[in-house]
Amino acid sequence: MATAAALAVAAAGTSQCKVVLAGTVAKSLLDEVQTTLKTLQRKPKLVGFLANDDPASRTYAEWTGKSCKQHGFDFELREVDKDELEEAVIAANEDNAVDGGIIYFPVFGTNQDQYLQQILDMSKDVEGLSHKYMFNMYQNIRFLDEAKTQKSILPCTPLAIIKILEYIGVYNKIIPYGNRLFGRTIAVVNRSEVVGRPLAALLANDGASVYSVDINNIQHFTRGEGVKMHRHHAVDTNFKVEDVIPKCDVVITGVPSKGYKFPVGLLKDGAICINFSSEDNFGPAVMDKASIYVPAIGKVTIAILFRNLVRLCQNREIKSA
Amino acid sequence: MATAAALAVAAAGTSQCKVVLAGTVAKSLLDEVQTTLKTLQRKPKLVGFLANDDPASRTYAEWTGKSCKQHGFDFELREVDKDELEEAVIAANEDNAVDGGIIYFPVFGTNQDQYLQQILDMSKDVEGLSHKYMFNMYQNIRFLDEAKTQKSILPCTPLAIIKILEYIGVYNKIIPYGNRLFGRTIAVVNRSEVVGRPLAALLANDGASVYSVDINNIQHFTRGEGVKMHRHHAVDTNFKVEDVIPKCDVVITGVPSKGYKFPVGLLKDGAICINFSSEDNFGPAVMDKASIYVPAIGKVTIAILFRNLVRLCQNREIKSA
Repeated sequence: MATAAALAVAAAGTSQCKVVLAGTVAKSLLDEVQTTLKTLQRKPKLVGFLANDDPASRTYAEWTGKSCKQHGFDFELREVDKDELEEAVIAANEDNAVDGGIIYFPVFGTNQDQYLQQILDMSKDVEGLSHKYMFNMYQNIRFLDEAKTQKSILPCTPLAIIKILEYIGVYNKIIPYGNRLFGRTIAVVNRSEVVGRPLAALLANDGASVYSVDINNIQHFTRGEGVKMHRHHAVDTNFKVEDVIPKCDVVITGVPSKGYKFPVGLLKDGAICINFSSEDNFGPAVMDKASIYVPAIGKVTIAILFRNLVRLCQNREIKSA
Repeated sequence: MATAAALAVAAAGTSQCKVVLAGTVAKSLLDEVQTTLKTLQRKPKLVGFLANDDPASRTYAEWTGKSCKQHGFDFELREVDKDELEEAVIAANEDNAVDGGIIYFPVFGTNQDQYLQQILDMSKDVEGLSHKYMFNMYQNIRFLDEAKTQKSILPCTPLAIIKILEYIGVYNKIIPYGNRLFGRTIAVVNRSEVVGRPLAALLANDGASVYSVDINNIQHFTRGEGVKMHRHHAVDTNFKVEDVIPKCDVVITGVPSKGYKFPVGLLKDGAICINFSSEDNFGPAVMDKASIYVPAIGKVTIAILFRNLVRLCQNREIKSA
């Protein structure tokens, strides 16, 4: 990530493209987190569960631990055998000293991982992957309670991208909240259940016309003409990449493959490009076309993780008060 | 299935193997369902959701409908576009006229299907696939409430196999409930999240030593020596099929492939064999080795589906009383 970002900054010297780094966007989020943190009764504790041999998971876990220390959170990495993971997570659910948990996937690499993901109690789910949270997100239900005092938690990476889009002005604050992407056309190249599909849904729920691109086809997510519907609707299309990309104001990629390069020649002049893959999906040519380029988003994602954590702590303090 | 069963019956003439047909096992379950049915306030209604073009799903849906009519249940097949399925299931959740639902998978064939599976309200989940039910099953928690008045729902196919094992005497009624498989060694050839893994867990939770075989490895599910633990524990092993099968009292297969044939030469003399695949996993040679052979289980599975349905209706009547 650092390399892509550094290259982008260097290349920006010779183009009109404004490079926005994740650290810059994360700053105001982290300030907000610090303000909330000071109001909490005690230092929140995040627990990471590492039950695989994947070096990328370990690196991410160590990075999370370092970031936690830096920003005033306790972090404990619990390394467990994969067959002990379910019990370890249940123990953390029941332990009042634990405020939040993250499981580093893949564990089994099968559907058993979806089962395990639901074991973590939603009151400690900093990543926002519990079924109830995902359901609320897809259904465009923004609060957990009828009195609308507790906001539902959103999945970290999709929300990080939303925050970036707010920062760079793609969300139009003149338009009422909930419709601030009305009129925008956005492509999301990735349709995983943890990032690509929820992101497309969130953007469409806010009024955008979204093309969700994966290896099989392109789906169109909208809330209907004139954003009439309460929530997004997704339909399969026969469109090809060359049909939709030239229409897009924003292109967001997350293809986890070194070999993949997005066809930047299709971008309209002045498009906004965001890469959330750990690989450099656009390459240096993006600088000749884009108006704004965000080469990586990791620092915003971790800021959102902390934001979710303090929010969960607040909810618990309200409940136990 | 009919062919395998017919062949098995024919071949039985020349061997010591007792062939047990699913229809025979289903009879007492269906009688029990009829008794409960008469106590209910109204005829229960099951709704099937068909959102794919898979002919096997349609055949199964039509067979479910026919069986429903035959046994005194209403059935309605709702054919919907896959993009409308989530809303259709939510509508059924909120409709008091609907007592139970089945979604015919695959729909998207991706992890989105796991999301959709959790949309059906657990109070209408006749297949027992809701996270809470699966969690209770893996954790060996047999009731939904602390007062132990409402039994948790178990997934249909695994429970059908349990009922078959009870019928053919593998469960030993002399031993206290909960440990009735203590001393038994059982192989389950399939480790899917909907049948093979839950089945291995259920059998181990009842005290068996279970070898769970899939294409990657063999896992050993037990409750420890002397069934000390409250629930099963699964560990990876380096065993090969030839190491474990000769030790097994019971071998249960569910390999959904025409080409696959279980190596019956490895069976111990007098082993009990059960096939839950729609393909004939054992072939005719099983008759020379097995003491009992159950060539197909479909009719027991549907009896369990009805049993779950009337149980859900009972729970609703208790709650609304």
